[in-house]
Amino acid sequence: MTVHYPNGKQTNYQQVTNAPQSASKPNLSLYGKRGMSLEEEINDSNAYYLAKEIAVIHKKPTPIQLVKVDYPKRSAAVIKEAYFRRASTTDYNGVYRGYYLDFDAKETRNKTSFPLKNFHEHQINHLKACIKQGGICFAFLKFTTMDLIYLLPATKLFTYWDQQGDDGRKSIPLQNIEQDGFQIKYQLNPIIPYMSAVDKMIAELEK
Amino acid sequence: MTVHYPNGKQTNYQQVTNAPQSASKPNLSLYGKRGMSLEEEINDSNAYYLAKEIAVIHKKPTPIQLVKVDYPKRSAAVIKEAYFRRASTTDYNGVYRGYYLDFDAKETRNKTSFPLKNFHEHQINHLKACIKQGGICFAFLKFTTMDLIYLLPATKLFTYWDQQGDDGRKSIPLQNIEQDGFQIKYQLNPIIPYMSAVDKMIAELEK
Repeated sequence: MTVHYPNGKQTNYQQVTNAPQSASKPNLSLYGKRGMSLEEEINDSNAYYLAKEIAVIHKKPTPIQLVKVDYPKRSAAVIKEAYFRRASTTDYNGVYRGYYLDFDAKETRNKTSFPLKNFHEHQINHLKACIKQGGICFAFLKFTTMDLIYLLPATKLFTYWDQQGDDGRKSIPLQNIEQDGFQIKYQLNPIIPYMSAVDKMIAELEK
Repeated sequence: MTVHYPNGKQTNYQQVTNAPQSASKPNLSLYGKRGMSLEEEINDSNAYYLAKEIAVIHKKPTPIQLVKVDYPKRSAAVIKEAYFRRASTTDYNGVYRGYYLDFDAKETRNKTSFPLKNFHEHQINHLKACIKQGGICFAFLKFTTMDLIYLLPATKLFTYWDQQGDDGRKSIPLQNIEQDGFQIKYQLNPIIPYMSAVDKMIAELEK
């Protein structure tokens, strides 16, 4: 089902299993995949990486504050009242080539810059903590009206985030993202082949 | 609030924030911490490791299948009908010393062996996939009536899991867990000092 979140983002609540989505849709073309949200594109790519034993990356479930739960006899527990909570981490993490990966995914309808208000302080703090432990951390930034996706290393994101107060700039210009990040071009499988950019980040770390 | 899960386990739904729990309870003694569930003990230990910048490990939220959500004007969205789903991964993961950590935590009231039915096929498969990517994977096994906690490396767990059909044994004898695993003895901070056992697993991997 499609749920409209308080932040206006749509999320698809399909059961995410270990089985690759593509296994049940062998004829799904790139054209057929168009119209996906960034989250769906990432989940689809992660299902491919998992099936091919390339990486194990999962989206974390949205945290829920439970208030009332019924336990009917002989059937499943029913949540009758609950609220969405703010996560204390980013949405995605996992393991690839022995490295811990951690990232978040954000979208904008803007065309020339990416608003920093898409990020929250606790997400930045979480990414900083993971970097300190040797994790490979980044963010996907998607310009939805132009179908442009960039992978921006977290250390670059921190620079823009921490400068916010100084010059008053509340967004990252697209040309800076082009310089500091990696453009991820759509293909069929995985639809977002982002591990090639991750390979470059790992090579940089191992220098 | 305390929620009774379909599997009979109790889970505490306190907000997990980046702030260490111990920061707000500076005088909490080991005695005061007794009576915690294994999940609370692990969360408390992870909060300590996070605060001390030793490791970044979080419990994943329980996945929920949303059915009905109300969006009242000028107030937060209310979940009116939802169900607990089975997770496709383990409950905990994160990063420590550049390594990806992944584990689950299980309890038994048994005294001489740990029943394998506490684990699910998809959790074992997830751990196997993470091992292939170079992750450090394990399980906490707690014998609740004796307050005994062991960290069992996932590769050892696989051996018992995969032998289930052969000799018909559906549990791991405690003496085998003592041999194959690491006993984690309670202390004050962190209450479960499990990173020392993880250090030994990393040393084994780096040999």
